[in-house]
Amino acid sequence: MTAQIIDGKAIAEQIRREVGEGVAELLAAGKPKPGLATVLVGERPDSAQYVRTKQKTCAELGMESFGYHLEATATQEEVESLVRQLNADPAVNGILVQLPLPSHLDEESVLRQISLEKDVDGFHPINIGRLAQKGRDPLFVPCTPMGCIVILKKMGVKLEGANAVVLGRSNIVGMPVALLLVRENATVTICHSRSQDLPGIVRRADVLIAAVGRARMVKGDWVKPGAVVIDVGINQIEDPTHPKGRRMVGDVDFDQVKEVAGAITPVPGGVGPMTIALLMQNTLRAAKIAQGLV
Amino acid sequence: MTAQIIDGKAIAEQIRREVGEGVAELLAAGKPKPGLATVLVGERPDSAQYVRTKQKTCAELGMESFGYHLEATATQEEVESLVRQLNADPAVNGILVQLPLPSHLDEESVLRQISLEKDVDGFHPINIGRLAQKGRDPLFVPCTPMGCIVILKKMGVKLEGANAVVLGRSNIVGMPVALLLVRENATVTICHSRSQDLPGIVRRADVLIAAVGRARMVKGDWVKPGAVVIDVGINQIEDPTHPKGRRMVGDVDFDQVKEVAGAITPVPGGVGPMTIALLMQNTLRAAKIAQGLV
Repeated sequence: MTAQIIDGKAIAEQIRREVGEGVAELLAAGKPKPGLATVLVGERPDSAQYVRTKQKTCAELGMESFGYHLEATATQEEVESLVRQLNADPAVNGILVQLPLPSHLDEESVLRQISLEKDVDGFHPINIGRLAQKGRDPLFVPCTPMGCIVILKKMGVKLEGANAVVLGRSNIVGMPVALLLVRENATVTICHSRSQDLPGIVRRADVLIAAVGRARMVKGDWVKPGAVVIDVGINQIEDPTHPKGRRMVGDVDFDQVKEVAGAITPVPGGVGPMTIALLMQNTLRAAKIAQGLV
Repeated sequence: MTAQIIDGKAIAEQIRREVGEGVAELLAAGKPKPGLATVLVGERPDSAQYVRTKQKTCAELGMESFGYHLEATATQEEVESLVRQLNADPAVNGILVQLPLPSHLDEESVLRQISLEKDVDGFHPINIGRLAQKGRDPLFVPCTPMGCIVILKKMGVKLEGANAVVLGRSNIVGMPVALLLVRENATVTICHSRSQDLPGIVRRADVLIAAVGRARMVKGDWVKPGAVVIDVGINQIEDPTHPKGRRMVGDVDFDQVKEVAGAITPVPGGVGPMTIALLMQNTLRAAKIAQGLV
């Protein structure tokens, strides 16, 4: 059996197109451009790259972006007062504080300053708290975990009653995606580095989310035949056959698992493109909320 | 094999004794009595009974209690303004809003008004959000879920790497106990009414938390020999042999499961007594926080 390769790029492209159309409709109705403020603290090259990509995507979809860059030595008060200033700015519909912050800063305290209505990244502790509670809907859901769910739904995967296994329990992906899967009525198992017999646990999954950050850890014989595998891992490995001497792989051994799974996301080109597409979708929705349209 | 019957009453009694001693120490140091405010809205007899028991326990342990009772027709603003008044009252260290609130009230909005430092019930959305995130510690943890963990620790159960199954995903017990078990490095499976093959899932549990509210649902052949079973269920069933014509049973078929499990909590006398003991412990800690002692 050879798995269906899930084209995350195409799914993301469709969402981007819809967002672009939504922006155009807003402008045609005489509303201001949706605006996303990005807050980058320090000089991490990966964070700087993520922020640039987000700003570029805003421009492509007809949205404004406002880039703020503070030095790595910025104080808690400097970061929080910037967030409060952006809360008060009507041109800013969404506020994205690029994580991780330098370790001297209290991340949760910064995230708590963001207006719930502008929390397009979905990491305000109240939005996370709502994610964990029945009958309470977060205003925004974190984009990468939501990307996994959107892919599963686009693929027509039945989540209700499915055995879903989440490998990894990070704040950014593992835990929120587990909470989302519970909300979709899946039976959810959260496993991690301390779990025993990971292959045995993973083998029971109808749906596997791998978000553990270890290159090609999930092997072919870990996977139930026909399972749907969503690989959130982004790992650089050395590869002398590639021009740069290295390449990007997921947490799943793609070559092995694609022979067993029913469907699988590749890395790159799977979940990755979903993250920014859903951030743009959230920002458009924040703009509509600000205009009283939703 | 016959399971060890876990004496939750004895464990709770020990905690109560420690809390009583802590209160006595505070008073001996010239500090004011720790104070718990209870907010009851409406006339649910079970809620009224819970509140009375909490007030009585406060008195037994040397704490103050302040009972507030609003009518079932109380408005959102009336309830929230009472909470704000209690936030501002230095004699009140802990605020307990008895749940569930009448359905016309926005429960989350009321809980959000409670000062984090007085949220002794642990249901403020920020405290729940912190429970779901690594590296962020809730100031207070909900008492019944915490009671399950305290029992497991007192019994010397190794949670790290254990397969823990939580049956039920309620806001009050199932979900927070699952999050606590993840924090204890267990592999956690959350299952519920939509899960398929519940007996098969439960049979893999080294630790089972039953919190689903269905009388004696978990049968003997659902349980792995030697497993530790924590029964959070409180269900009334008809029983003509009892003086009242009914009696209380858990979610676990105790007579069957005690022949298979390694240890099991009875109902009543298992988790039940832990809830109030831990509420008192939280209130004492809130008083110490207010005094700058922790």
